[in-house]
Amino acid sequence: MTDDPPFNPALLPAGFVDRLPPEAEAEAAGVETLMRVFAAHGYERVTPPLLEFETTLLSGAGAAVAAQTFRLMDPDTRRMMALRPDMTPQIARIAATRLPDVPRPLRLSYAGPCILMASNRGEGDRQISQAGVELIGPDGPHADAEIVALAAECLATLQVRGVSFDLTMPALTTALLDAGGFESTVRGMLMRALDRKDAAAVARHGGALADVLIRLLHAAGPAQGALAELAAVELPPAVRVLSERLAATVAAIEARVPGIRLTVDPVEFRGWQYHTGVCVSVYAAGQREELGRGGRYLSNDDEPACGITLRPDIILRAAPPLPSRTRVFLPWGTPAEKAATLRAAGYATVSALGPDEDPLAQAALLACTLVVADGQLVPVDGA
Amino acid sequence: MTDDPPFNPALLPAGFVDRLPPEAEAEAAGVETLMRVFAAHGYERVTPPLLEFETTLLSGAGAAVAAQTFRLMDPDTRRMMALRPDMTPQIARIAATRLPDVPRPLRLSYAGPCILMASNRGEGDRQISQAGVELIGPDGPHADAEIVALAAECLATLQVRGVSFDLTMPALTTALLDAGGFESTVRGMLMRALDRKDAAAVARHGGALADVLIRLLHAAGPAQGALAELAAVELPPAVRVLSERLAATVAAIEARVPGIRLTVDPVEFRGWQYHTGVCVSVYAAGQREELGRGGRYLSNDDEPACGITLRPDIILRAAPPLPSRTRVFLPWGTPAEKAATLRAAGYATVSALGPDEDPLAQAALLACTLVVADGQLVPVDGA
Repeated sequence: MTDDPPFNPALLPAGFVDRLPPEAEAEAAGVETLMRVFAAHGYERVTPPLLEFETTLLSGAGAAVAAQTFRLMDPDTRRMMALRPDMTPQIARIAATRLPDVPRPLRLSYAGPCILMASNRGEGDRQISQAGVELIGPDGPHADAEIVALAAECLATLQVRGVSFDLTMPALTTALLDAGGFESTVRGMLMRALDRKDAAAVARHGGALADVLIRLLHAAGPAQGALAELAAVELPPAVRVLSERLAATVAAIEARVPGIRLTVDPVEFRGWQYHTGVCVSVYAAGQREELGRGGRYLSNDDEPACGITLRPDIILRAAPPLPSRTRVFLPWGTPAEKAATLRAAGYATVSALGPDEDPLAQAALLACTLVVADGQLVPVDGA
Repeated sequence: MTDDPPFNPALLPAGFVDRLPPEAEAEAAGVETLMRVFAAHGYERVTPPLLEFETTLLSGAGAAVAAQTFRLMDPDTRRMMALRPDMTPQIARIAATRLPDVPRPLRLSYAGPCILMASNRGEGDRQISQAGVELIGPDGPHADAEIVALAAECLATLQVRGVSFDLTMPALTTALLDAGGFESTVRGMLMRALDRKDAAAVARHGGALADVLIRLLHAAGPAQGALAELAAVELPPAVRVLSERLAATVAAIEARVPGIRLTVDPVEFRGWQYHTGVCVSVYAAGQREELGRGGRYLSNDDEPACGITLRPDIILRAAPPLPSRTRVFLPWGTPAEKAATLRAAGYATVSALGPDEDPLAQAALLACTLVVADGQLVPVDGA
C-alpha cells in the first residue's frame, strides 16, 4: 500500500471517465442505433453478466485477453471471478452452453461495458463500450460478408464518413512460414520483421520465401490490387487455399455492399489472437483508433463462428453530433395536457416547481429556448 | 482457497445470469423507454464509470452501501477501487464536482448495471440493472412530486398494472423518539418493536409516547387515512413540521398524477440509509420485489436533492411482453432493395448465406414466419 494522496472526490482512476451531457446521451443513442440495425437483420440480443468465474471467462477464446483482466474473489465460494475485458468469448460460451439446440446459423447481438486492467500502452480507456454481432455455425465467405455488411450499414446509419474495412488473414502468414520450414529463431525474426513491415529484414531472413514475402508486404492496400498480387505470386497449396478464401470473401463483401472501401494486408497478423480466418479492422477518416474489429474464429466446441465488435464510444467521436431535443419551460400552472402534447411532439419539457418562479428567467437559466405562455410556444429571448 | 469443482463452462457465480432472447431485448427496450420518458421531462443523461476509487465511491451517500461493495486494487496506483453497488451516490458526486456551475434545479438521468457483493438474504441477483433520475437543488414538495410523477409515467408507459407508491418519512420516527427523550437501550428496543410492527412491545417501551406510536403504527395504509391520523395525534413541533411536509408532498403528488395509488406508513424507517425527507418504494400487484425506490437526501456539499431509481430487470417481470419483430427469410438472390424495404417496415430479415439452401426449410428452421418469393411475402406453413 502506498500512502493515499489527499482525498479528492473528483478524482477517478486513470482510464475511467464520467460521461456528461450531451456525450452520454449520444453514446446511448449510438448503441441503440447499432442494436436496431442488428435486430433488423434477425440478430437476437443476449446479455451476459459483467463478471464470471475466471476459469469460464478466460478459457477458449477468452485466454487471449487473460493478461488484461481484473480478478476478484467470490466471498461465497472463494473462487476467483474476472471482470470481462471482451464480450465475444461470453457470446461463444452462451452459444455453446445455453443455446446448443437452437438451429444454426445462430445470429446473436450484444452491447455493454467491458473493463481492461490496463490499456495497450498504459494510457487510454480502461472502461470501454462494445456492441456487436456473432454469426455462429456457418463457415463461408457469405457469412464473413454478412458481418462486414452489418458493420457498414451501422456506420452509414450513424453517418460516419470515410469508413474503410481493412481485411487480413493471420493464418495465411502462419501457413506460409510453416511451409517455409524455418528454424524457430529465424521464424521469430521473420515474424518481427513482417510485423514491423521491415522489408530489409524480411529479405535477410526470408530465405527462399523472401521474394514472395516482400511482394506481399508491398501488396498491402486497396483490396483488388492486393488480391491480384496474391494471385500472381507462387504459393504452397495450403496457403493458396487461404488466399482463395480471402479473395472469395472480398468478392462476397463487394457484392453485398457495392462501393465499400476495402483494403487487404496479406501478411498482417498482429493483434489477432484467437482468430482462424478472415479478420477485419474498421477505421474512419481522421480517427486513429479502430471503430471496431472482428473476424472468424472457433467458438466453444470448435464450432465455426465469425463476428464483429464495434466500439460505440469511438464511433461517436467520428459521427456527427445528434440533434438534441428542444427544451420548453412550463410555467407553474401549465395544463398537464399541453405538456404531454409537447412531449409527444418531441420537445423536452422542464416544469416550474412552484408558483413563485419568473418563467422567462427560469427558462433562460435552464437552457430552454421556448416557454409556454397563454397556451402558445414563445421564444425565450436574451439569457 | 477451496478445491475448484470440475470445470463446467455453463456455471456462473450465484446471482449472475445470462439474459437470453427475448428477455435481453425486452430489458434493453424497457431501459430505453424509461430513459425516453426522463429525457422528455428535461432530464439529461450522465454515465459514470462502473468502478471508482473506494474513497470516492463509498464516501457521503455511498457509505451506506459499503458493506455490499466488491473492492479490487488498481495495479497502477495500488489504491483500492470499488465496483458500484448503486448509481445515486455517483450522480450526487457528478453534480457536485463536474456540474457545480450548471444552474439548479439540475435534472440528471442515468442507467446501467450495478454489482452487489451479496444480495440482502444471501440469494437473488448480484448484478442488478438501474435506471433513474436525480433532481438536484430544490427542496420542496413539488420537487418530490416530480420524481414520483416521472416514475408513475414510466410504469404507465410500460403498461405495468396495479402500481402503488408507498411513502415514508424515516426522519419522522427519529424525531419523535428524540422528542421522547428515551434512554438509549429503551430507544433501541422501541426501534426494533416499530420495525417489527409489534404493537405490544411498542406499548411496553413507549412510555408517554406509546399511545401516539401505536396509533401511527396502525395508521399505515392509503395516504389520506394515514395523513388524517397523523393530523389527529398530538406531535412535538419538530415532528409536526415533518408530518406537514409529508402531507404537502402527498397533495403535490395527487395534484400532478390524478388517480395515483399512494400509501403512507408514518413510522416506517427500515432500509433507508442516507435519506433525509420523504422516501418512496414502488410496487406492482403480484410482484414481491420493489420496482424502484428513492427519496430526498443531501447530495455532496449538503445540497438538497431527491431522486428515484427504477429496476428495469424487475419491472420487466411485471410488464406485458413486448411484441417482437416478425422474421422474414430472404432466399439467396433476394434484391437488396426489397430487403431494405422490409426492414424499414419493421420486419427482421434473415438472409440465406448461399444459393444451396432450401428457402422454406431454412425459413422454418430459423423461426421465420414469412419468406420472400417472387418479390412477395409468403407465409411459411408447417415447420
